[in-house]
Amino acid sequence: MLAARLRGVKKRMVVGTVVPIEEERPSATRSLEPLQRLVAEDLAEVNALIIDRMHSRVPLIPELAGHIIAAGGKRLRPMLTIAGAKLCGQASRRKVMLAACVEFIHTATLLHDDVVDESGLRRGNATANSVWGNQASVLVGDFLFSRAFQIMVEDGSLRVLDILSTASAVIAEGEVLQLATNNNPETSEDAYLEIIGAKTAALFAAACRIGAVIADRPQAEDEALESYGRNLGTAFQLVDDALDYSARQATLGKTIGDDFREGKITLPVVLAFRRGRAEERDFWRRTLTDGRQEDADLAHAISLLERTGALTDTIARARHYGAIARDALGIFPNGPIKQAMMETVDFCIERAY
Amino acid sequence: MLAARLRGVKKRMVVGTVVPIEEERPSATRSLEPLQRLVAEDLAEVNALIIDRMHSRVPLIPELAGHIIAAGGKRLRPMLTIAGAKLCGQASRRKVMLAACVEFIHTATLLHDDVVDESGLRRGNATANSVWGNQASVLVGDFLFSRAFQIMVEDGSLRVLDILSTASAVIAEGEVLQLATNNNPETSEDAYLEIIGAKTAALFAAACRIGAVIADRPQAEDEALESYGRNLGTAFQLVDDALDYSARQATLGKTIGDDFREGKITLPVVLAFRRGRAEERDFWRRTLTDGRQEDADLAHAISLLERTGALTDTIARARHYGAIARDALGIFPNGPIKQAMMETVDFCIERAY
Repeated sequence: MLAARLRGVKKRMVVGTVVPIEEERPSATRSLEPLQRLVAEDLAEVNALIIDRMHSRVPLIPELAGHIIAAGGKRLRPMLTIAGAKLCGQASRRKVMLAACVEFIHTATLLHDDVVDESGLRRGNATANSVWGNQASVLVGDFLFSRAFQIMVEDGSLRVLDILSTASAVIAEGEVLQLATNNNPETSEDAYLEIIGAKTAALFAAACRIGAVIADRPQAEDEALESYGRNLGTAFQLVDDALDYSARQATLGKTIGDDFREGKITLPVVLAFRRGRAEERDFWRRTLTDGRQEDADLAHAISLLERTGALTDTIARARHYGAIARDALGIFPNGPIKQAMMETVDFCIERAY
Repeated sequence: MLAARLRGVKKRMVVGTVVPIEEERPSATRSLEPLQRLVAEDLAEVNALIIDRMHSRVPLIPELAGHIIAAGGKRLRPMLTIAGAKLCGQASRRKVMLAACVEFIHTATLLHDDVVDESGLRRGNATANSVWGNQASVLVGDFLFSRAFQIMVEDGSLRVLDILSTASAVIAEGEVLQLATNNNPETSEDAYLEIIGAKTAALFAAACRIGAVIADRPQAEDEALESYGRNLGTAFQLVDDALDYSARQATLGKTIGDDFREGKITLPVVLAFRRGRAEERDFWRRTLTDGRQEDADLAHAISLLERTGALTDTIARARHYGAIARDALGIFPNGPIKQAMMETVDFCIERAY
């Protein structure tokens, strides 16, 4: 009920009618806090293990890996592995090891993504490739990826190895698929969903279900956590894509427009292009397909996204997947972990505002 | 005895005294033939499995992977996995699956190497990155790497997973180490050996010992095959590095000078630099460290390598590791497979001429 009410409030805010309330509502980070609190102890162990296992006799490896790992993502994926395991009553250290694997795989894909996207900045920090070059980023990514598999071998579960090697293959497929659609604003919404399902949601799903797998829980719980993770990951990516055009993000001093500058096709663009007039489609083709951009283009892009409702509706789509994620947890008994995982869904969506 | 005699003949040939005999001796490929014949049936299965498992719903993946896989390496590594398994009396299909894993990992590293080296040609063919771009090469490499782990999971041996995940981490470390020495001709011979031990010999060693592991043979046989592979891999890389400056390769129409143009430090350069006069060291610094190269520089580099005996002695070092590899097989009973593996060592060294 509260969540539904909040969503209603947020929805009104998006169309910009209730600006004063926006300042009063709880900050978006607050709703991740219950999860952070519940996994804090384990996550500290995960962080220690990450530092320990990214060590190599080749100093450049921990130096470069440390740069991106310390750059301070939210550690959402390993937190979800811990949370999933706790929800399934798994108390051993295995969840810590496997959460570190998930973060290593995620970090490896980030390193390779930044090379692929030729990015210079990530979360406002210089990317590893811009500091140490593409070569080192590719190779340290390979190292972290291999390291993840070494840790999984230590853990000794072939099922976990299966889940994470399959997720890794799917992620790579999703990234290649994205390359193929890049710069093409005629990409369909279905194609876009397939891409983010592979490149983002697959690892969220794997991260979550590992908990049920190592706790040896029934298939229904494995599937429930898989569904929670996959739908949460989809919602997360949709919101991420909307945030890249968010005027509010800009006022908060966060970087926006990265996707636009790279000609990356995300749902906001897919919707705005389909809903747009002929001259607006020409604008998207010029800026994203031909890559001819001028200073005022990003602002114009945002105005088109707002006029066509593309941003609002991208968030509406995210809310749909978020609702599925919350319902997936229905089979688990109520308790603080389940509650925190529910709130995490809200956090992932509400950070859009 | 014959091998020793042949080596003597070859050694004289190197210094160029017996050119007529050179035309009469058996071609270098002939000595790989016994191994190729003995593993042919299994290797055909490996190739079929590779084609089958590089499939993806994303067409670019098999297209790009097929390009590099079909480009026709010798499939030396998967052949060694098959041979090691046969030497240990392993008759199941497992060796085929794991040989395919080894080739996938090797191919993934080649794709990433070509991106790292910014290579345009490999074995005289356009590299994948020059056809499809660095982005696709990085991602398809990731895909093949993940696929290798998926196949290992199907096979189900945690020991094999351990061996190949560790080898992969070591390879990445070796490549990063190489980055750090790149363009520095003062690199020591020891540092160079450490690099090739990691970037090349580790996968040869892993490929070979898998045979003993899946046949559940005693530790001594596992170690013998590991040593055979590691030393063969070292010899193989040393010869490879010499061939890149081989005047004979050039007359055969093969590409030479890739390492020189990339400023890559290999043993021939390490030796020539240490043995060179001050103005020769300046030459290496200008061409490799500063990357200022003119048309006649490659020819001059080759003349310096020949004058200082750097190429001959690189091959002499290779012969040393080759001898260790042959002796490592001593504990296995004689037979056609062992004989073929012995001859493979000769092939890897004699292809230098």
